[in-house]
Amino acid sequence: MQLLESRIIRDGKVKDGSILKVDSFLNHQMDIELFGEMAKEFYSLFASENVNKILTIEASGIGIACITAQAFHCPVIFAKKTKTKNIAGDVFTAKVESFTHGVTYDVVVSKEFLSPDDRVLIIDDFLANGAALSGLASIVKDSGATLVGAGIAIEKAFQPGGQMLREKGMRIESLARIKGMSENGVEFC
Amino acid sequence: MQLLESRIIRDGKVKDGSILKVDSFLNHQMDIELFGEMAKEFYSLFASENVNKILTIEASGIGIACITAQAFHCPVIFAKKTKTKNIAGDVFTAKVESFTHGVTYDVVVSKEFLSPDDRVLIIDDFLANGAALSGLASIVKDSGATLVGAGIAIEKAFQPGGQMLREKGMRIESLARIKGMSENGVEFC
Repeated sequence: MQLLESRIIRDGKVKDGSILKVDSFLNHQMDIELFGEMAKEFYSLFASENVNKILTIEASGIGIACITAQAFHCPVIFAKKTKTKNIAGDVFTAKVESFTHGVTYDVVVSKEFLSPDDRVLIIDDFLANGAALSGLASIVKDSGATLVGAGIAIEKAFQPGGQMLREKGMRIESLARIKGMSENGVEFC
Repeated sequence: MQLLESRIIRDGKVKDGSILKVDSFLNHQMDIELFGEMAKEFYSLFASENVNKILTIEASGIGIACITAQAFHCPVIFAKKTKTKNIAGDVFTAKVESFTHGVTYDVVVSKEFLSPDDRVLIIDDFLANGAALSGLASIVKDSGATLVGAGIAIEKAFQPGGQMLREKGMRIESLARIKGMSENGVEFC
């Protein structure tokens, strides 16, 4: 998606060779008008899939997921990273290793909100090693729902998650796929 | 707001006398069409305030904030609850005590995204003891920006946050104000 790639080139910052900071428009400050354009793109890619639930993971996937859900006229469920007093015991869980934070955490979705009748689109801001996406896919599988695919804002295609999950048969549509990056800039696939 | 109150009565669940579970439409599964109606209400309340930034806190405020930002045509900033490798050192911080989780955490906003020129509307899903809202307001103050007020989905008016912050001069507009609740139901102000 040209608009997103241009924005990454203009406002993204590469740190330490493999961290792409896009916090001025994607995952700390969020450009909602950009999200609207991304939502149109996700809708055009998955419009025929009869999506009735969008699944994402807290926190930075939520904004993109909510704007995208307007196009699909469906609710969003966000997987929570820790159990809280406010989540009932009856949950689907998966373990997710965060390479950014160097920790492994449980992600949970209440069983009330996913069932075999659902057709689920996963939306997230980043795909790199695929840990979050694998965890979300495993939750969808456990629920018996159908996973129609995943819509990702930025895929680091030089990391293994995208290839690994596509080889397992997952449909993944990434709006910007990064082939490589360095302090000198970002190159797209 | 009648629509939100009706939804709380229909789908909210009171646990242990003071916890209101609204996770089927507000803060785990999110009803985006409902958020659209809430956004219209927030816009009508704050339309004259020239809001140019919406500030919220991860995770459950993000969805409402993003849909509301569409009405104001402005970006959303979400305060993060822990420092991550991906946030630069130059941040505004505040300590927030979570009564739900029984912990105190730091919330941070990068200094890049708030400045004295900004007119900030805080959006959040709940107001109870006012800890999160106080923390966000203190971040806005530290930045030199103008806080035009706070738009809250559900205020537990029987807890002290709303009164305390209004007495300090904060404009708070809550779409549903709960006077009291028990296993028998919810009563609005």
